[in-house]
Amino acid sequence: MKRLLILASLIGAAPALADEGMWTYNNFPAAKVKEKYGFEPSQAWLDKVRLSSAKFGGGCSASFVSPNGLVMTNHHCARGCIQQLSTAQKDLIANGFYAQTQAQELQCPALEVSQLVEITDVTAQFNTATKGLTGKQYADTLRAEMAKLEKACATSDDIRCNVVTLYQGGRYNLYKYNRFQDVRLVFAPEHASAAFGGDPDNFEFPRYDLDVTFVRVYGKDGKPAKIDNYFKWSAQGAKEGELTFIPGHPGRTSRGLTVAQLEYLRDVSLPKTLFRQSEFRGMTTEFQNRGPEQKRISSNQLLMVENSLKANKGKLEQLSDKNFFAQKVAAEQELRQKVNADPKLKAKYGAAWDEIARAQNAYRDIREEFEAMEGSGISGQLFAFARTLVRAAEELPKPDSERLRGFNDASLTALKTQLASKAPLYPELEIANLTFSLTKMREELGPDHPFVKKVLGKESPRALATRLVKGSKLADPKVREALFTGGKKAIDASTDAMIRLAALVDPDARAIRKKYEEEVEAVIRKNSELVAQARFDLYGTDLYPDATGTLRLSYGSVKGYMEDGKKVEPFTTMGATFDRHTGEDPFALPKSWLAAQKDLTASTPMNFVTTNDIIGGNSGSPIISKDAEIVGLVFDGNRQSLGGEYGYDETANRAIGVHSEALVESLKKIYKADRILEELRPGSTPTVKSAPGR
Amino acid sequence: MKRLLILASLIGAAPALADEGMWTYNNFPAAKVKEKYGFEPSQAWLDKVRLSSAKFGGGCSASFVSPNGLVMTNHHCARGCIQQLSTAQKDLIANGFYAQTQAQELQCPALEVSQLVEITDVTAQFNTATKGLTGKQYADTLRAEMAKLEKACATSDDIRCNVVTLYQGGRYNLYKYNRFQDVRLVFAPEHASAAFGGDPDNFEFPRYDLDVTFVRVYGKDGKPAKIDNYFKWSAQGAKEGELTFIPGHPGRTSRGLTVAQLEYLRDVSLPKTLFRQSEFRGMTTEFQNRGPEQKRISSNQLLMVENSLKANKGKLEQLSDKNFFAQKVAAEQELRQKVNADPKLKAKYGAAWDEIARAQNAYRDIREEFEAMEGSGISGQLFAFARTLVRAAEELPKPDSERLRGFNDASLTALKTQLASKAPLYPELEIANLTFSLTKMREELGPDHPFVKKVLGKESPRALATRLVKGSKLADPKVREALFTGGKKAIDASTDAMIRLAALVDPDARAIRKKYEEEVEAVIRKNSELVAQARFDLYGTDLYPDATGTLRLSYGSVKGYMEDGKKVEPFTTMGATFDRHTGEDPFALPKSWLAAQKDLTASTPMNFVTTNDIIGGNSGSPIISKDAEIVGLVFDGNRQSLGGEYGYDETANRAIGVHSEALVESLKKIYKADRILEELRPGSTPTVKSAPGR
Repeated sequence: MKRLLILASLIGAAPALADEGMWTYNNFPAAKVKEKYGFEPSQAWLDKVRLSSAKFGGGCSASFVSPNGLVMTNHHCARGCIQQLSTAQKDLIANGFYAQTQAQELQCPALEVSQLVEITDVTAQFNTATKGLTGKQYADTLRAEMAKLEKACATSDDIRCNVVTLYQGGRYNLYKYNRFQDVRLVFAPEHASAAFGGDPDNFEFPRYDLDVTFVRVYGKDGKPAKIDNYFKWSAQGAKEGELTFIPGHPGRTSRGLTVAQLEYLRDVSLPKTLFRQSEFRGMTTEFQNRGPEQKRISSNQLLMVENSLKANKGKLEQLSDKNFFAQKVAAEQELRQKVNADPKLKAKYGAAWDEIARAQNAYRDIREEFEAMEGSGISGQLFAFARTLVRAAEELPKPDSERLRGFNDASLTALKTQLASKAPLYPELEIANLTFSLTKMREELGPDHPFVKKVLGKESPRALATRLVKGSKLADPKVREALFTGGKKAIDASTDAMIRLAALVDPDARAIRKKYEEEVEAVIRKNSELVAQARFDLYGTDLYPDATGTLRLSYGSVKGYMEDGKKVEPFTTMGATFDRHTGEDPFALPKSWLAAQKDLTASTPMNFVTTNDIIGGNSGSPIISKDAEIVGLVFDGNRQSLGGEYGYDETANRAIGVHSEALVESLKKIYKADRILEELRPGSTPTVKSAPGR
Repeated sequence: MKRLLILASLIGAAPALADEGMWTYNNFPAAKVKEKYGFEPSQAWLDKVRLSSAKFGGGCSASFVSPNGLVMTNHHCARGCIQQLSTAQKDLIANGFYAQTQAQELQCPALEVSQLVEITDVTAQFNTATKGLTGKQYADTLRAEMAKLEKACATSDDIRCNVVTLYQGGRYNLYKYNRFQDVRLVFAPEHASAAFGGDPDNFEFPRYDLDVTFVRVYGKDGKPAKIDNYFKWSAQGAKEGELTFIPGHPGRTSRGLTVAQLEYLRDVSLPKTLFRQSEFRGMTTEFQNRGPEQKRISSNQLLMVENSLKANKGKLEQLSDKNFFAQKVAAEQELRQKVNADPKLKAKYGAAWDEIARAQNAYRDIREEFEAMEGSGISGQLFAFARTLVRAAEELPKPDSERLRGFNDASLTALKTQLASKAPLYPELEIANLTFSLTKMREELGPDHPFVKKVLGKESPRALATRLVKGSKLADPKVREALFTGGKKAIDASTDAMIRLAALVDPDARAIRKKYEEEVEAVIRKNSELVAQARFDLYGTDLYPDATGTLRLSYGSVKGYMEDGKKVEPFTTMGATFDRHTGEDPFALPKSWLAAQKDLTASTPMNFVTTNDIIGGNSGSPIISKDAEIVGLVFDGNRQSLGGEYGYDETANRAIGVHSEALVESLKKIYKADRILEELRPGSTPTVKSAPGR
């Protein structure tokens, strides 16, 4: 795989002619789209698309697809819910699910769908509040200002508000969301079809996945929510060359980072993460061999780590590319030279890059302790609950502006939802995971580190993990609620083993966090703001910000690409899906598919690729036409797109989607899901039944 | 950990004042040692040390320590034998072993100890034979010349001869070895003591390990071999500041590699290896949870992968150090500039670096296929046997000079020994490992690669691995012997599943190997020779060659070092060992130690460090005084020494050894091994018995 990546708009040396960018709804390059594709989205069009889009759970995207609250996303996005609704006896992951009637729709234990209803630019307020401040003062003020704005905005339980830091601090926007907290499962195919090809095919194209799930959002009255803005279904789906838009929540890109930050990622952070994830994958894969039930309860974990592992490998490959990195260095040099050439700009911004490098080096020195004490050193669901409860007891009595992020009044509803989760918790897997993280912690810090001695005492990681999990009742939501309500007194009196550990390590964790926030984070934030402002001053404001897990819009078109000298066609077909069926996981199609093969139109487009600039977090995004109709469903990017974390390359970066016609064909002929079809395309063709005797 | 590494002797810009170098016995810097330490080893001294040293198995070092064939090495070197002699009922790894009488000594199933008896410089012959040749012709001639020389030298079964490529081809030496093929276990402590601290303490100092094992070599008459040259035992052991020598077999260093080669290691090879090893470690760790017997049979594998993983992380850390790498770049630039400044040198050597870079890039393009087909793509003991048998049937009928390396007449005895191994083979572990490697192969090449399709067909990695292991009888040495003796006819007729797979993939494997040998290996060899010769021309011949797994000698002294601003003392004590005992593996001392604690002299030195320049492969090396007496036993290097692969830094690189007094004290008071003690120190103190009633 060769890359010829031109960092067009970020360095500003050339206009961004490529389909690059994950744009905000208040700075969309409508004129540029018109210039290239002849269609100019109006503000009304943008508003409708924004309101028809949804954030799904913590890290996915989705879309409203009917006036009655029907929501479309990926199977791999809804997988947590599907697994939580499964039992050893009734495995919805393996067998799929279809609610024949609305009454059969199953409530997800812990899932939220939200809709971005308002965007306010609050940059000026922030700049005024933090003017002239640095270090601790800057960080404290920033945090207090955020808490204040979010609190004022979140006027009810149904509303969530977040201050979003765009352009590394060049802009601050307040995003207001409608929250849907009653989410019910409507339809999911079998895992074998949703993730056909498994890890070997993940991030690859050609591809053959039916990675879809439908859920429905309900109101507080227990009835399907009424939705004013939703996407209609396209009659034919995406065609080659067609202009496509993808609204969604790309999680993170790092295109605006400085060279010092990229070096840290390349030389330290990504390799260390990959070593850990590789080992965790090996452990989880072998854990699956303990038995069928262990396989079931750990499958989600395996998918997640494999996905992240492959993505991180792609990122590291991109940063290890000498030519690519040289472009990054050159772009930074050019910007710094321009800054230094102007005495006013130099005085304002000149030191920012070195300050960031210094903070980045300071982080190198404390990284291992930070990770151990405040990061992944002690892992698992139970410890996460314990830490949240211990901190809530400490934080909530404080004035709102002095609390740790995540414990502000504006976040309380989300916090309570999280603590009330009815999602099952598997002690055997908890012990395995906790053993793993404690072993890693000892490895990273060494057995003689005071923190390691404090946590482990004379116990081995396995013995301690077993004792902690067996000695904790935090798997029970009622126990958590009581501890949350009981506050500091209840926490201090608790003999729960996990609560005691969380309390034991909290002073260390808070101390290293404070050091990190003041000496690393605050310095990087402050100076990244300056770098971003330097870019605005020198290159103008027609730039898109790095992805931040918030709603964006990308544009592009359906288009193949070249790989190793060969053309990769933009479409696969449902017929070709059967050619890859070997009968062995992950290349084993489910029975439903094999039974329906004869009825399917083999030439129906299955998956396809577009040039839209997306990244992890866009999973579940609809692919829409200029008429804002669904023509596909994003579920992946190709291998080449993984480097998109650091820059976009139109020659090979591709978004991968399920074609809308494959969705219709499979709902109709494989799953006989008439009820959904009718909702997606009112008045559409009735289900074709197999002829008798066939 | 900070490094201030000065690449003195390799760049030749400054004299090597540091204790740097793994020197050959025919180019030892005796004068330099005298200058720094006041002692000049004579040729007779060097000869005696060489003949008293031994190579142990495939990758370790050892020493003769009595006239009756007693050999000292590390527990972790003899671990393979100790495990092979164990059963589920009698676990010698966990419980240790001591043969009270000579008759009780247990024969290791597959182990060889060898002694370097002669070194001949054959560089001129090689240069004449390959003069003017390149590519395939060069590689063929080199191979043929090696086979010819080795064959002429290996006049009996007891002799092994290898042509050793020194200075990346700057010199060729013929090494002649005495082979001892009957090796019997005499004494081994419990694993818990030998590897006290386990993986967390591995490559760390301070340290507290009794990593020793004694074996005895026997002659063909079944009697202990008579040994003329052996090391006597020091009366007191190593003292701080004392001059120490370490003879041994350092496996590999890469200090003479070009920048292009180092970049490949840093950006591709080391990261990819680490990802794979991390995952394999995770898998093996969790495999241990299948049950106690599975834990026993996989412990060796776990130790090996953890050791290699930690070593490789240290190497990558060194290469990722910007300052260190900049020194490497500067050294190469200086050498190239000097070459280019002289028209004659330029004509001779000027193109070598770019040629190496080109070949290295060519390898990047085929690396994945090479690894899959000829490397670790199909792993496990059974497949290794199958490939050897399939290739032997193909190769042996050919003229000696045309055979693949490893199948020459000179290698036949070793080949037969390997095939005759009685070491047990564990099908459950074989299946797990083979599943792992097949999964990785599919991941690396992709499921649609013709080779993957050929190997897997419609089976999953696990299904195929299970079928192959269950369908193979190659675990039986008699079956292997019959197939070896039967030649091509027997192989063609065999229905053994593993033989059939090896035969199926051999054409692909040979093709990629040929491509690699001609387009990568031959080009790099040829041009590395030129770089080495350029160094000789410009910097003289007082240089040491990179380690090659052959006998070397390093010098240094007992000396502490600074780490993170604190002094690390050079000695630990037996008493302090008990302070680290937690009772939980890997910090649980065995019962024998706890029982003897009261009898031990707490101040006895336990482990210690020296400045000797060593690397993996030196494990089991004796540490000797200028009187060639044993003062310690190398078993590790500290973390800082891992970067020694690429350069030596006297400020912090340290060899770690068991002190000779700790060996004596534990043999005497913990293990009551009078028979060995008497052999090591004839007429020494009789064993102290515990007073009755204590």
